[in-house]
Amino acid sequence: MNFRPYSSQAAADFTAAMDLIAPHIASVEEKIREQASFFESGIEEYITYACGSSGKRLRPALALLAGGATGNVHSEHVALAVILELIHIASLVHDDIMDQAELRRERPTLNAKWGNALTVLVGDVLFAHALRMATQFSKADICRRIADAAIGVCSGEILQTEHRFDTDLSLSNYYRMVEMKTGSLFAVACELGAVFNDAPPEVVAALKKYGTQIGTAYQIIDDCIDLVGDEKNVGKTLGTDLLGGKFTLPVLMLLQSASEEEQVELRQLLLKQETMSREDLVAMIVEQGALTAAIAEASHLIDQAEAALEILAENEYVNGLHSLASYLRGLLPSQ
Amino acid sequence: MNFRPYSSQAAADFTAAMDLIAPHIASVEEKIREQASFFESGIEEYITYACGSSGKRLRPALALLAGGATGNVHSEHVALAVILELIHIASLVHDDIMDQAELRRERPTLNAKWGNALTVLVGDVLFAHALRMATQFSKADICRRIADAAIGVCSGEILQTEHRFDTDLSLSNYYRMVEMKTGSLFAVACELGAVFNDAPPEVVAALKKYGTQIGTAYQIIDDCIDLVGDEKNVGKTLGTDLLGGKFTLPVLMLLQSASEEEQVELRQLLLKQETMSREDLVAMIVEQGALTAAIAEASHLIDQAEAALEILAENEYVNGLHSLASYLRGLLPSQ
Repeated sequence: MNFRPYSSQAAADFTAAMDLIAPHIASVEEKIREQASFFESGIEEYITYACGSSGKRLRPALALLAGGATGNVHSEHVALAVILELIHIASLVHDDIMDQAELRRERPTLNAKWGNALTVLVGDVLFAHALRMATQFSKADICRRIADAAIGVCSGEILQTEHRFDTDLSLSNYYRMVEMKTGSLFAVACELGAVFNDAPPEVVAALKKYGTQIGTAYQIIDDCIDLVGDEKNVGKTLGTDLLGGKFTLPVLMLLQSASEEEQVELRQLLLKQETMSREDLVAMIVEQGALTAAIAEASHLIDQAEAALEILAENEYVNGLHSLASYLRGLLPSQ
Repeated sequence: MNFRPYSSQAAADFTAAMDLIAPHIASVEEKIREQASFFESGIEEYITYACGSSGKRLRPALALLAGGATGNVHSEHVALAVILELIHIASLVHDDIMDQAELRRERPTLNAKWGNALTVLVGDVLFAHALRMATQFSKADICRRIADAAIGVCSGEILQTEHRFDTDLSLSNYYRMVEMKTGSLFAVACELGAVFNDAPPEVVAALKKYGTQIGTAYQIIDDCIDLVGDEKNVGKTLGTDLLGGKFTLPVLMLLQSASEEEQVELRQLLLKQETMSREDLVAMIVEQGALTAAIAEASHLIDQAEAALEILAENEYVNGLHSLASYLRGLLPSQ
């Protein structure tokens, strides 16, 4: 069993979705680059650096595709895409402090370059700037929903941090925190993408559900990759969740399926990190079927996300949303 | 020369201002206490703790007094007061991480109790919550101005952090960062307090100026107290600015007034902290007149703040704003 994040099928699905919105994504990239100039001189440098790392821009893609799926993609969608990506970047800036990460996408993190104190503040100011941008929409309600999503991201991360090294973490709490941490921004991207086209409430709700499920599935997949992925394929350091005491779905499912005696031993393994090799744990997770179960859960969420789209009239952007779902499936291991 | 933060005159002036708005301040306190219930269970505890430390509530006081000074104090002023205090609390939560502070107002800081990772996130979620609350105002412009003030606070702090241990920091940069860091929230409190009463633009501008100058003066005074105050009088650990490389107005003025040779020696003293006693530096600052000059600057800003109020029709709340100015004067040392 091996994860295949760069399988040709996944890459083709991703490209199929992104090609549809290529000019808009280019606008998003340009506007992200422009943001630094809105800050005080002396701060610009940090903002440029923080925004300079090129992510996959999944949240912008969802906002734009949801726009196309419900009508036209217009300037409000582009603005929304920029705002959500900036919130995401701000959260990564703070994540890297918490994880004491030194590298992100092969560049030194802000904390590695400038220390924690300055990095806390750069995350703050980027976040404030993003929410300030959200006041540009004529309806205050839009800004509120974006702020709610940001609260969701932080809340999910707080709960996760609180439950580090908690071998009693329930599956329902794991789902709740993952849905908040990653589902929130994915959901609001899709939801507001439809709201900007005055889509009927059931369409808005359907897209919000698609975003929530896709976001949650994406996080579960990312968590699985951190455990059992191949660093060469993935291009980043793996195994950090376990080291940091973040017990993710495969681990929790292994604990759940274990006998009482096995559970005692497993808890000892998980808490006394020095005696546990990642390889041993991964082997157990695979042998006991916990990885398969976690993958099945992610796959089920992707099914639900795609089912939610059935209410929409078919067009190329709706197909694009299906392509993103296929892309996520392509990240799942071939068994 | 000795600072007298709890002089009977300062206390009387503070009380005179606060008594005018006592029922509204009670509402603000109650609403601040209520905020925790809006968060996920599991997060409430941190929010309750963060909001449980009783500050002087200067920003709420300004919002309420500005309301009374321009008409009535109504529910929007109370909401504004709560929002600004929450932004202030969020910024203190992050400050304590950066300063590695263990105590604030005689209670363990959040970072001391729960570690940096969780504390970064609690500051974030509190901040997001405050900006989310700001979307309640019918005009999007209100939320934008509050976000701008929050950006100002963060930007001022970034510049200050950037210039730690910078003995070449110019006075103009010091004023700029202090005005942003502390003046921003004071200014927006006064400005929006007037906006909510549809005060004419020149009155809004006058109150904004009052807030900016009072806020900047307050920060300068606080910086002076950190250098030369008496811990027993002030009730908190002093001298932390110097240790952390924050060179504040008296230090910068001493550097400016020194001869070239003295400057060389001073820079060595400031940068090689182990060879410098706070007492020696304070003695120099006092003897060379740098403290007097810094105090004169704060006093001048308070004059400007009070002069800005001349445009307002006199009423008890305007008198309250003058009382707050007198309170700040009462914090200055008796010479």
